[in-house]
Amino acid sequence: MKIEQIQRASQRLRDNKAFELFVVTIIILSALLIGAKTYKIPESLMTLILWLDVAITLIFLFEIVIRFIAEPNKKRFFHSGWNVFDTLVVVISLIPVDDTEMALIGRLVRIFRVLRMVSIIPELRTLLNSLLRALPQLGYVLLLMFIIFYIYAAVGATFFAHINPTLWGDISISMLTLFRVMTFEDWTDVMYETMAVYPLSWIFYLTFIFLTAFAFLNMVIGIVVNVLEDEHARERAEQDEVDGKATIEDLQSEIRELKALIQAQQR
Amino acid sequence: MKIEQIQRASQRLRDNKAFELFVVTIIILSALLIGAKTYKIPESLMTLILWLDVAITLIFLFEIVIRFIAEPNKKRFFHSGWNVFDTLVVVISLIPVDDTEMALIGRLVRIFRVLRMVSIIPELRTLLNSLLRALPQLGYVLLLMFIIFYIYAAVGATFFAHINPTLWGDISISMLTLFRVMTFEDWTDVMYETMAVYPLSWIFYLTFIFLTAFAFLNMVIGIVVNVLEDEHARERAEQDEVDGKATIEDLQSEIRELKALIQAQQR
Amino acid sequence: MKIEQIQRASQRLRDNKAFELFVVTIIILSALLIGAKTYKIPESLMTLILWLDVAITLIFLFEIVIRFIAEPNKKRFFHSGWNVFDTLVVVISLIPVDDTEMALIGRLVRIFRVLRMVSIIPELRTLLNSLLRALPQLGYVLLLMFIIFYIYAAVGATFFAHINPTLWGDISISMLTLFRVMTFEDWTDVMYETMAVYPLSWIFYLTFIFLTAFAFLNMVIGIVVNVLEDEHARERAEQDEVDGKATIEDLQSEIRELKALIQAQQR
Amino acid sequence: MKIEQIQRASQRLRDNKAFELFVVTIIILSALLIGAKTYKIPESLMTLILWLDVAITLIFLFEIVIRFIAEPNKKRFFHSGWNVFDTLVVVISLIPVDDTEMALIGRLVRIFRVLRMVSIIPELRTLLNSLLRALPQLGYVLLLMFIIFYIYAAVGATFFAHINPTLWGDISISMLTLFRVMTFEDWTDVMYETMAVYPLSWIFYLTFIFLTAFAFLNMVIGIVVNVLEDEHARERAEQDEVDGKATIEDLQSEIRELKALIQAQQR
Repeated sequence: MKIEQIQRASQRLRDNKAFELFVVTIIILSALLIGAKTYKIPESLMTLILWLDVAITLIFLFEIVIRFIAEPNKKRFFHSGWNVFDTLVVVISLIPVDDTEMALIGRLVRIFRVLRMVSIIPELRTLLNSLLRALPQLGYVLLLMFIIFYIYAAVGATFFAHINPTLWGDISISMLTLFRVMTFEDWTDVMYETMAVYPLSWIFYLTFIFLTAFAFLNMVIGIVVNVLEDEHARERAEQDEVDGKATIEDLQSEIRELKALIQAQQR
Repeated sequence: MKIEQIQRASQRLRDNKAFELFVVTIIILSALLIGAKTYKIPESLMTLILWLDVAITLIFLFEIVIRFIAEPNKKRFFHSGWNVFDTLVVVISLIPVDDTEMALIGRLVRIFRVLRMVSIIPELRTLLNSLLRALPQLGYVLLLMFIIFYIYAAVGATFFAHINPTLWGDISISMLTLFRVMTFEDWTDVMYETMAVYPLSWIFYLTFIFLTAFAFLNMVIGIVVNVLEDEHARERAEQDEVDGKATIEDLQSEIRELKALIQAQQR
Repeated sequence: MKIEQIQRASQRLRDNKAFELFVVTIIILSALLIGAKTYKIPESLMTLILWLDVAITLIFLFEIVIRFIAEPNKKRFFHSGWNVFDTLVVVISLIPVDDTEMALIGRLVRIFRVLRMVSIIPELRTLLNSLLRALPQLGYVLLLMFIIFYIYAAVGATFFAHINPTLWGDISISMLTLFRVMTFEDWTDVMYETMAVYPLSWIFYLTFIFLTAFAFLNMVIGIVVNVLEDEHARERAEQDEVDGKATIEDLQSEIRELKALIQAQQR
Repeated sequence: MKIEQIQRASQRLRDNKAFELFVVTIIILSALLIGAKTYKIPESLMTLILWLDVAITLIFLFEIVIRFIAEPNKKRFFHSGWNVFDTLVVVISLIPVDDTEMALIGRLVRIFRVLRMVSIIPELRTLLNSLLRALPQLGYVLLLMFIIFYIYAAVGATFFAHINPTLWGDISISMLTLFRVMTFEDWTDVMYETMAVYPLSWIFYLTFIFLTAFAFLNMVIGIVVNVLEDEHARERAEQDEVDGKATIEDLQSEIRELKALIQAQQR
C-alpha cells in the first residue's frame, strides 16, 4: 500500500509542469557552469562552482530516482535509450574526480549533461530521432562512398607516400587527406606537391572530387525525394479519408440499382 | 476643418507616384553619398557632401511628417515596424555629429538609411517578411545545432585550451573556431595542431563536421518540403474552387432523385 | 529571277546537314587553334596557324553571308541576337591585328568564336536561353542581396579602412572583400585582423554570412519551386487533354436528360 | 553428359549463399591486405601477405571459372560489363610482378579488386548503375560548362600567362586553375595577383564564378526535377491500376444503357 502511494506521488511530481521546468532550468545552469569553467575564474568562485556541481548532480540523481519509481513496469524503464543515457550520466557524475584518469571522464560526462536537454524536450527528441531514422536509408550510398575513399586512399598511399608521408604515409592518413580534399581545404597544395613528381596526378584528384561530389549529390536528392514521397503518401491517406463519402464505385452501384428498377418495370 | 484639409493634402502627396519616385531617388542619392564618403575626396567636395547630407535628412524628415499626418489613426502609425524604423533613422540623423561617441552612431544611422529602400519598395518588404517568417519553423533545428556547438566547444575548450589558447581559450572563442571548422576554412590546420598532442582528435572534427552538415541538410530539406507543401495546399484550394461546379456527391443526389421518380412511377 | 535562284541555293546549302557539320568542325578547329596558341610553338607552326586563322575567318564570313542571303526577310535576320553576335564576331575578325590596341580586341574576338558553338547547336541555345530566362525572377532577391552587400561594405569601409586599406579601403574594395567572405575564402584571416582592434567585429562577419547564406538558400528554393510548378502545370495541362473524354459535368448533363425523359413519361 | 553435370554443380555452387558470403569475405580480406601493405610491416609479415595475395588470386580465379562454367550461354557471359571487369582484374593479377613497369599495374589491379565488392553486392551495382544512368541527361549542361571553362581558360592564358606561368602558362593549366577558382580554393590569391597588373580583372573571376555556379545550380535542379518526375510517373501508373475498377467513362456507358432502356420503354 505504502509503495503504491510513493509511486503515485512520484508520478504526480514527474508529470508536474513546474517540476519539468525546474529540471530544464537546472540543465541550463549545468550547461552555463560547464561554459564558466573554461574561463579563468578566481579561486573563491571556483569553490562555488564545485558546490553547485555537487548540487546539480544530486538534483539529477533525485529526478532520475523519481522517474524510476514513477514507472509502473521497472523493466521497461531501461528499454528507453534516453533513460539509460540519463542514468549513466548521473551515475558516472557521482564518482569522485580526484584520480587524474577518471577526472577526464568526469569532465566529459559533465559536458554530456547538456545533452539531457534533448532527452527532456520532446520536440528535440523527435527531431533527433527523425535525423537518425534517415541514416539507414543512406546505408548503401555511404558504403559506396567508403569504397571510393578506400580505393583512392590505397592508390594515394601506394604512389604518393614517398612524396609526403605526413599526408599519404598509410591508408588511414590518406583517407583523412582525401576527406580534406573533398572539403576543398587547401586541396591544390596537396595536388601541386604530387604533380611535381607525377604531372598527371591531377586526374587522381579531379576524378575523386567528381565521384564524391556526384555520390553526395545523389545522397541529398535521395533524401529529398524520400521525404517528399512520405509527405505525399501521408497527404493522400488523409485525402482518401475525406473523399470516403462517395466514390465512383458508389455511383456505379446506385446506377445499377436504377437499371434493375427500370428493368423490373418493363417486365 | 483646417486639420482635415491638411490631412487630405498629405494623403494625396503620400499616394502620389511622382513623390514616391522622388523619395526613392533621394534614398539612392543618400546611398551614393555613403559610398562616396569612403573614398578620399577633396575638401571642397566634402563640404558639398555635408550640405547634401543635411538636405537629405530634412527631406526624410518632411516625408515622415507627411506620412504621419496622412495617417487618420495616429496610434496605428507606430504599429508598423517599418514606420518606427524610418522615424528612428530620421530622428537620430537630426542629432549633430560633433561628439566623437555620437559620431559613430550618426555614421551608422546614415548607412542604415539605405535600408529605407526595403521599407519603401513593397516587393522587397514582402520578400524580407517571407524570409523572416521562415525563421521560426527552423527554431528547434537551430536549438539542436546550438547544443551540438555548445557541447563540442566545451570539449574543445577543456582539452585543447593549453594547445592553442587563441583558438580554444574559452567556450565562446571555441564556438567561433568551430564555426570556422564548419565553413571548412583552414580547418585542417586547426586539426593537425591538436592531432600532434591527441592523435585521435580527428574523431572530434569529423564527427562535428558530419553532425552539423547533417543537421544543416535536414534544415534545408525541411524548408524545401514546407515551401512545396504550402504551394501544394494553395494550389489544391484553387482547384477545389474550380471543381466546385459539380462533385461526385452532386451526381449521387441527382441519381437518388431519379430513383425516387421511378419508384413513384411504379406505385 | 537570278537573285531568287541564289537565295534558294543558299537556303539549300544552309539547311544541308553536311554543311552544318562542316561549320561545327571549323568552330572546333578554331577553338583548338586558340588553345594551341597558348603553348610555346615553333615559328614554322606559328605561320601555319596564322594561315589557318585567315582561312577560318573567311569560311565564317562565307557562312554568315550564305545565311544572310538565305533569309527571305533581310530585316528579320538581325532581330535574332545570335545572328548579330555571329556577324559582329566575323566582322571584327576581319580587322588586321597589327595595331597593339586592336590586337587585344582581335584576340578576344577570336576566343569568343568558340561561343559560336552555342549559336549553332540548337540544344545549347535552348539551354542558355532557359538559364537566362530564370534570371529575371531572381531580380528582387538579387536587389536585396546587393542592398545587404552595400550596407555591410559601407560599415566595413567606415570602420575597418584604417586597419587594412587593401581590404577595406573604399566601398567597392569592401564589396569584393565581402564576396570573398561569402565564399569562405580565408575569411577568418580577415576577421581576426579586425577583431584585434574591435573584439566584437565577429558579429559583423557572422551576421553577414547568415544573411547572405539565408538569402542564397531562399533564391535556390525559389528556383526549385518555380521549376517544379512549371512542370506541374504543363503536366496537368496534358492530363486535362487526356481526361477530356468525359468529365463529371458530362455525367451530370446526361443524368439530367434521363430525368427529363422519365418526367416526360410520367405526364 | 559429364559437362552438363559439371555445369549444374557450378550453378549450385554459384547460387549457394554460403559461397557468396565466402567470396565477399575474401574481397574484404583482399581490401584489408591492400591497406596493410601501406603500413611499415616486419619482413616476416610481408611474406605472409605475399602468400595470402597468391591465395586470394587463386580463389578469385576459381570463382570466376565457376561462374563461367555455370553460365549456359558462354557468349552472354562477356556481355555483362561486370563479368569482363572481374575477369580482367583476375587475369592481370596472375601476371608475376617482378618487372618494375608491370609492378605498377599489378599493384593498381590489386587495389581495383576492392571494386569487386560493387560487382558482387546487387544493391551497390544497382546504385552505381543509377548514378551512371543520370550522367547522359547532364550531357549538354556539361558541354556548356566545358565551353565556359575553355573560353575563360583561353582568355586567362592569353592575358595572365606573363604574370604567373605556373597558373596560366597554357590553356590546360589555366583550366586547372579555373577549376580551383570554382572550388573557391585560395581563389583570392589568384585574383589579387592579376589585379596588381589588370585592376579590372576581378570582373573575369566574378563573372566566371557566377556563370559556373549558375550552370551547376541548374544541373542540380535539373536532376532533382527529373528524379521527382520519374517517381511521379511511376506513382501515377500504379494508381491508374488501382483506379482501374471504375472510371467516369464506365459510368457514362452505364447511364447511356439506362437511357436506351427508358427510351425503349416509351416506344
